Amino acid sequence: MTNPISITDPADPRLDDIRDLNSSDRRPDLPGGRGLVIAEGNLVVPRLAASRFPVRCVVGFARRLEELEDAASADPAVAAGLADVPIYEVSREVLAEVAGFDMHRGLVAAADRVGEPTVGEVLDGLDEDNRVIGVLEGVGDHENIGALFRNAAGLGVGAVLLGAGCADPLYRRVVRVSMGHVLRVPFAHVPGKPTTWQRGLADLQERGYRVVAMTPNTDNTLADAVRGADKVAVMVGAEGPGLTEHAMRAADVRAKIPMSPGTDSLNVATSAAVGFYAAQP
Amino acid sequence: MTNPISITDPADPRLDDIRDLNSSDRRPDLPGGRGLVIAEGNLVVPRLAASRFPVRCVVGFARRLEELEDAASADPAVAAGLADVPIYEVSREVLAEVAGFDMHRGLVAAADRVGEPTVGEVLDGLDEDNRVIGVLEGVGDHENIGALFRNAAGLGVGAVLLGAGCADPLYRRVVRVSMGHVLRVPFAHVPGKPTTWQRGLADLQERGYRVVAMTPNTDNTLADAVRGADKVAVMVGAEGPGLTEHAMRAADVRAKIPMSPGTDSLNVATSAAVGFYAAQP
Repeated sequence: MTNPISITDPADPRLDDIRDLNSSDRRPDLPGGRGLVIAEGNLVVPRLAASRFPVRCVVGFARRLEELEDAASADPAVAAGLADVPIYEVSREVLAEVAGFDMHRGLVAAADRVGEPTVGEVLDGLDEDNRVIGVLEGVGDHENIGALFRNAAGLGVGAVLLGAGCADPLYRRVVRVSMGHVLRVPFAHVPGKPTTWQRGLADLQERGYRVVAMTPNTDNTLADAVRGADKVAVMVGAEGPGLTEHAMRAADVRAKIPMSPGTDSLNVATSAAVGFYAAQP
Repeated sequence: MTNPISITDPADPRLDDIRDLNSSDRRPDLPGGRGLVIAEGNLVVPRLAASRFPVRCVVGFARRLEELEDAASADPAVAAGLADVPIYEVSREVLAEVAGFDMHRGLVAAADRVGEPTVGEVLDGLDEDNRVIGVLEGVGDHENIGALFRNAAGLGVGAVLLGAGCADPLYRRVVRVSMGHVLRVPFAHVPGKPTTWQRGLADLQERGYRVVAMTPNTDNTLADAVRGADKVAVMVGAEGPGLTEHAMRAADVRAKIPMSPGTDSLNVATSAAVGFYAAQP
């Protein structure tokens, strides 16, 4: 990790990557109009550093930068991700002025987006013993996607595939809610239109995954649906509409979480967590 | 349901119960300084009406009040809860002025708090076939408590007991995040200090509940911990610190959700959902 460079002028262009964070996801000047990958806090910034995304800069309070240095000393992957990266030390007032709000966590980093792997590359990269992956369709809420990646990471899910209609998983809010796990759990978009992307599920089936469509509208319980499966792809749809008929028809089996009558369905990230848990060996 | 009375003056004192909703949880003028029970939107307001909390007033846009009338026609419990309750019709501008923000849901109701049942009363009131209850310790975050009640309702949990250190489950934010289920799922506080309330768990054990303490720090899996139990009390602690040693010692068994190494524990409401699911018959 390089030595921190102190910056006292909020207008310094070296801080442009972390300027106006509340609108940092809209960057008409960048490819696709999408923002940089932004990581905040001393839990998530090291995860960004250890990820495949090349860090452009780190900005923080002196004390937080010391903690980051400790994290880099403890983990060679973090140290490697921060090698030659400019580190800027700022005061609380300067950071608030640049970021656009009082950022009490005092540590933020920006990284470039990198080309996304294909579905095949993601699946090829899975460990031999991976048993569970996630598949999303139409999940448009950033907070739900973030929570889902956090649950996926915790529950040993090897990868997440995104069907049509999902929100950008590299939004700042997703990174934050996922606690940085969206930067670690491999993901890929399944190509195709809203009515055709489901054909890509055949790839999974050929590789031995049983594709389980989570829906309240079936008599099959989740426990029955996963029983005896070697590998499981847990597929969930948006809260409210749920999975499309196209997606459910492309699945091997439909499965419901037994619910009390008269209640709403669970939040999509919570449903997925229950599915991931049930699919564990 | 009574006929709506139109109010056009935001200063009308009949609207005082829903004034300044963002600070409605602090009411120094009310017993204990705690606010009224506030329900928002056409999903939650009928649940408040059907609950044990006596509704004081309903305020909304004309169209939302019509929808509420439909809900009352469809459900006698909703109709009973709204009998003789004053209904005020307001414009979007008036509601925004009174509530303190633009309330696009256009429907809000206020109810009195009522005396909380004891643990014994809650347990006596459970159905014969109830198999799962929840127990919380030190869950101080309103959003987590709300999500937990939503999960409890969906997954057939008969009651929730609150140990020491939990936030007020009738906060406006809890009601909203729980989608009103905190008004339906019976709950009670277990009396005692942070180091003594756990003795109340003996009550549960005498009634045949196996008390399962959810913690990452054990070798017992959740599936093993609930196997063969007739009734299960799923006990969870705050994110971060988790359950106290006092609580874990008072439990019958400790149980972990199998997690990937190097990840954080799950959110407390998500952990509880997995526990509730696993404890189902």
